[in-house]
Amino acid sequence: MSNRRRGFAQERDLAKKLWDKGFAVMRAPASGSKAKRLLYPDLVAIKNGVVFVFEVKTTRSRKRDIYIPRHQVDKLIEFSRRSGGMPFIAVKIVGEGDWFFIPLRDLQETGSGGYKLPLSRLETHSFLKMDNLLTLALGVRPLRDYLEK
Amino acid sequence: MSNRRRGFAQERDLAKKLWDKGFAVMRAPASGSKAKRLLYPDLVAIKNGVVFVFEVKTTRSRKRDIYIPRHQVDKLIEFSRRSGGMPFIAVKIVGEGDWFFIPLRDLQETGSGGYKLPLSRLETHSFLKMDNLLTLALGVRPLRDYLEK
Repeated sequence: MSNRRRGFAQERDLAKKLWDKGFAVMRAPASGSKAKRLLYPDLVAIKNGVVFVFEVKTTRSRKRDIYIPRHQVDKLIEFSRRSGGMPFIAVKIVGEGDWFFIPLRDLQETGSGGYKLPLSRLETHSFLKMDNLLTLALGVRPLRDYLEK
Repeated sequence: MSNRRRGFAQERDLAKKLWDKGFAVMRAPASGSKAKRLLYPDLVAIKNGVVFVFEVKTTRSRKRDIYIPRHQVDKLIEFSRRSGGMPFIAVKIVGEGDWFFIPLRDLQETGSGGYKLPLSRLETHSFLKMDNLLTLALGVRPLRDYLEK
């Protein structure tokens, strides 16, 4: 399976898990389509009027940083600004199974203008899990609670 | 151009117009993709945490009814329920140019279990325009105002 096909399979996996938790979920059209100009994120999940906007990344190791091109972060921010949503990098460590969600403030700029997610140096408590998103959507706790730990 | 390709072109046109009005817009992945099982609507537009959910239809004449299969209406309702959004049939009369948006309460059930939009018998004032959606998103007027005219 090519990287790209594997990427789509992982996106579908995340979409299905969010759907099973009761979110309305929308995946972007295949990249390369003309609509790409409209700055689609990989995935959007909505519940109760609360919008989550995701760029999806998979990695084989928790020990490596994840590099993210600047334009991917820019479109995440722009879509979130327009929708009033919350942007996250959705990460799956292949083999470990669970998805987690990392807020953009944990990204670091690289010298070349892009970003990296310093996975190896992040404290595990800054990883939001699926159930934390549900809690946010239901308004039980604000995002700030998670960010300020 | 096939009907299906023309349908995509019209969806792109609507997506672009909503984007130009400041909405965050997401089109569904191409139909036939495995993700279809998750009940995607044709298009979702979000602004300010207000979610609009669309099934997109084009017609060549205002004089003909538009028939809509039951499963398309069901997925519109289910996605709206999950997201807390408002479902509409987005209609473009080819040649006239503008899009308008019709709430589900204007659908009629057909004898065979589907629905029809009795375009020819609808009062024009039940057609919402793009700017009405903006007004709804900004919370200036509630949807009820439009429905009870």
